[in-house]
Amino acid sequence: MKLIKNSAGRFVPDQINGKKQIPFKGVDKHKPTGYKAKPAIKTCIDYPSDGNKIVKSLKDALTKAGLKDGMTISTHHHLRNGDVLTNYLFDTIKQMGVKNIRWFPSASFPCHQHLIKYLEDGTIHHIEGSMNGPLGRFTTEGNMKGVGVLRSHGGRYQSVQDGEVHIDIAVIAAPTADPFGNSNGVTGKSASGLIGFALADSEYADNVIVVTDNLVPFPCVPWQIQGNNVDYVVQIDSLGDSSKIVSGTTEITKSPDRLLIAEYVAQFIDEAGIMKDGFSFQAGSGGTNLAFVLFLKERMKAKGVKARFVRGGSTKYLVQLLEEGLTDYILDGQTFDLEGVRSMRENPNHVNTSPFTSYNFHGKGNFASIVDTAVLGATEVDVNFNANVVSHSDGYLLHGIGGWQNCLYSKCTILAIPSFRDRIPVILDDVTTLCGPGELVDVIITERGIAINPKRKDLLAKLKKSSLPIKPIKEIRDEVNDICGGAPQKPKVNKNKVVAVVKWIDGTLLDSVFQVEK
Amino acid sequence: MKLIKNSAGRFVPDQINGKKQIPFKGVDKHKPTGYKAKPAIKTCIDYPSDGNKIVKSLKDALTKAGLKDGMTISTHHHLRNGDVLTNYLFDTIKQMGVKNIRWFPSASFPCHQHLIKYLEDGTIHHIEGSMNGPLGRFTTEGNMKGVGVLRSHGGRYQSVQDGEVHIDIAVIAAPTADPFGNSNGVTGKSASGLIGFALADSEYADNVIVVTDNLVPFPCVPWQIQGNNVDYVVQIDSLGDSSKIVSGTTEITKSPDRLLIAEYVAQFIDEAGIMKDGFSFQAGSGGTNLAFVLFLKERMKAKGVKARFVRGGSTKYLVQLLEEGLTDYILDGQTFDLEGVRSMRENPNHVNTSPFTSYNFHGKGNFASIVDTAVLGATEVDVNFNANVVSHSDGYLLHGIGGWQNCLYSKCTILAIPSFRDRIPVILDDVTTLCGPGELVDVIITERGIAINPKRKDLLAKLKKSSLPIKPIKEIRDEVNDICGGAPQKPKVNKNKVVAVVKWIDGTLLDSVFQVEK
Repeated sequence: MKLIKNSAGRFVPDQINGKKQIPFKGVDKHKPTGYKAKPAIKTCIDYPSDGNKIVKSLKDALTKAGLKDGMTISTHHHLRNGDVLTNYLFDTIKQMGVKNIRWFPSASFPCHQHLIKYLEDGTIHHIEGSMNGPLGRFTTEGNMKGVGVLRSHGGRYQSVQDGEVHIDIAVIAAPTADPFGNSNGVTGKSASGLIGFALADSEYADNVIVVTDNLVPFPCVPWQIQGNNVDYVVQIDSLGDSSKIVSGTTEITKSPDRLLIAEYVAQFIDEAGIMKDGFSFQAGSGGTNLAFVLFLKERMKAKGVKARFVRGGSTKYLVQLLEEGLTDYILDGQTFDLEGVRSMRENPNHVNTSPFTSYNFHGKGNFASIVDTAVLGATEVDVNFNANVVSHSDGYLLHGIGGWQNCLYSKCTILAIPSFRDRIPVILDDVTTLCGPGELVDVIITERGIAINPKRKDLLAKLKKSSLPIKPIKEIRDEVNDICGGAPQKPKVNKNKVVAVVKWIDGTLLDSVFQVEK
Repeated sequence: MKLIKNSAGRFVPDQINGKKQIPFKGVDKHKPTGYKAKPAIKTCIDYPSDGNKIVKSLKDALTKAGLKDGMTISTHHHLRNGDVLTNYLFDTIKQMGVKNIRWFPSASFPCHQHLIKYLEDGTIHHIEGSMNGPLGRFTTEGNMKGVGVLRSHGGRYQSVQDGEVHIDIAVIAAPTADPFGNSNGVTGKSASGLIGFALADSEYADNVIVVTDNLVPFPCVPWQIQGNNVDYVVQIDSLGDSSKIVSGTTEITKSPDRLLIAEYVAQFIDEAGIMKDGFSFQAGSGGTNLAFVLFLKERMKAKGVKARFVRGGSTKYLVQLLEEGLTDYILDGQTFDLEGVRSMRENPNHVNTSPFTSYNFHGKGNFASIVDTAVLGATEVDVNFNANVVSHSDGYLLHGIGGWQNCLYSKCTILAIPSFRDRIPVILDDVTTLCGPGELVDVIITERGIAINPKRKDLLAKLKKSSLPIKPIKEIRDEVNDICGGAPQKPKVNKNKVVAVVKWIDGTLLDSVFQVEK
């Protein structure tokens, strides 16, 4: 493995896990060539004509799917921190004596700490997907056999569609399914909303196993996953605890500082002229981003403005907008609470989307760039508006990318962040890990000041007379450094040991995460 | 071109339009190898970031799509005999001076008689798709330059998916669309129901043009066609006349003989034990098949039986079943009247399906074989239960296959047909054109007698004490021949000139249609 400096000035490996890589070439600079992945042609002759694909156990399904060493197995995070199936899946794989699995989750959560023993004993070779919390810590300390690969939700779809990642077996947790394999996430005791993160897997994996704790007679309606793409259906007692889809990142903030940020965001969107009839917005997860919705709502009501659509991750706050007639649609990629699940089940204007529709950069356009404004979080930003969302300033990889990179394409991308956390400044000279190139970040809003990207002269002009504390970003940085006693120390890392890489939405390598030396 | 005798004893060409063919090997005998078609990878860089793909005219869109001689252009029949767009499309192609187009419609209708001049002047080389009425007559008389290819709805999906047919430009008539290309058929002045016949085209064509007469702001919900697969959007005044989706084949019969057949069908389904709680059925188009629904409904109500699902082509009769609680779902492939359109728009349990979910034989199963009973029509049957649905006994090709071949896979396939038409017997020794192998036809119901396929010993046993006029098929044939004065004369055809072929659902060649000598 050789490190190459990419166009963002970041050092990335020329290959990962034995596969050649393309370094990041700049925003909108890499044009793909070639063709999409081509799954084998199947025939109804090989499937039960009565449509009953039920097999007696997950082990049985894995055996029929030809599970063997070195395969790629995918799972999905619709149940978020309430997921039980993935741990059970790897218990089963371990029991079957199979090794060196590439685990390809759409995201992992702290509940998957259980899998560390399988990373240690060689059952799992490496993870391609977010490594939140404990798995991230394990990886950052150099304990994972292979190199982790972090992708956005759109990048995950792109990688499967383009044939970069070939999935041998997809295991889809389905809160409701029929024996044919039609499945959804809106009904059943484990209802967690939509299950669109499994779409690419269902379309392209060699073997697709649907696991459900709520089997209904054919047809399971709606079918968010189509049985025509499914090989086996397995019934188990419980997929997990859907109440745990609500987590720290999906509850509204109570912090006065963060509420102030949220208020600034709403005021900014209003004064920038974005908040007008027929507009659209997306709020990422995280307490501040949720809170701004409440402030924006008040402004919308006061001015009689109605949105055409809002993007979820949906929460009860977005559902209220829909139910009060303040938006025509919620276009939802993931329900963040049970009110979101209920609304998606009951309201035809609460529409489920997938990473294909919303985020895939290798399609004929996607939804992300149509959105008027996206309000997102970040772990760090820098004076060039570059942003980090996966690691902390201590070098530890603790979060996934989610749809964050994809959402940067909105017409006005706002990062709403506290200026410091635990007395560590959030605005740096250089982010620890580059996840979002500064040219796609339009505004940074902190409790201490608002910085508009100098590229956005239009916004600077529109906000000229605003009462908002708009300042050059370096001024905010200096102020925060003064409060915190200087910029954070650079982490001590082993520059020869890449533990994970961050892919850009086009499949190129944007940055590396290095082993932290304890 | 050499003729080969296939496993059904029919003579089929070894190649058509310069492409090598596989002769029919028997039901469930041909296992495909290889991989699905692989479209080129696209990138958002090449599409407008605001999602606005509108171009000013169809001509403009065709030019941008690189229209040239010899290309394959697809259209769809959701507006049935009310379609105006396809004629306008070929007027435009003619005007652009482009020649030798392979026209790949999902079906054609009498309204497309307009295109005969383009078949004559070389604008259109040949048609792959049904050739109803005038186009069929034109073809049968040997006037088309290339050889026509008839496929079922499922076979059409299969041929595109498998790369047998590569579509250069798909032109999709969308009763509602947004500038991004999301489209549906349930709303707008030309609302004709679903537009699922265009699904394969949208997924696999190089260029996808959506044409609409009802442009709405993004997002168009529901999106039956996804804008992420669309290249250009064109606005025109009118797609056609949606009231003409109601045609002769979608109105209930008034003939006493045919009503008797319909009554027999309902009684048969009841006495065979098929009509029980949770059962399912499909009625094809055609007045008799629609009428049996009314008789079955009375029996269902009398016995307190409820269906789990019914398959459309939907009509007001199926909608009544749904609205009266006699079925949980309509799984609909095509709305046959405006009540069907309304119901699909309003009722989440009236679900739109596509040839992929319902009929594609090269998938991991499909819906067709899950259905308990399908009641279909036929132009001819023979004493071996083989059936014809495309030509008449005079050798003329006058109808398309539709979903008919695919539906033969139901658990009990019933052909409900008059024993003669215009004094021409319908039960022959040998069908003129083989469309459905006899082993998939379970029952033939005529006004003069009911024949159960001897293979279905279970049905023979169950109906042993029935009051229905169950007889050997040859007995019915003899009776009808007596009435009509003998079997119909074989048409005089040129056995050296194949004008069209009938594909089986697996892409193999089932039979040929020969030039009729006038």
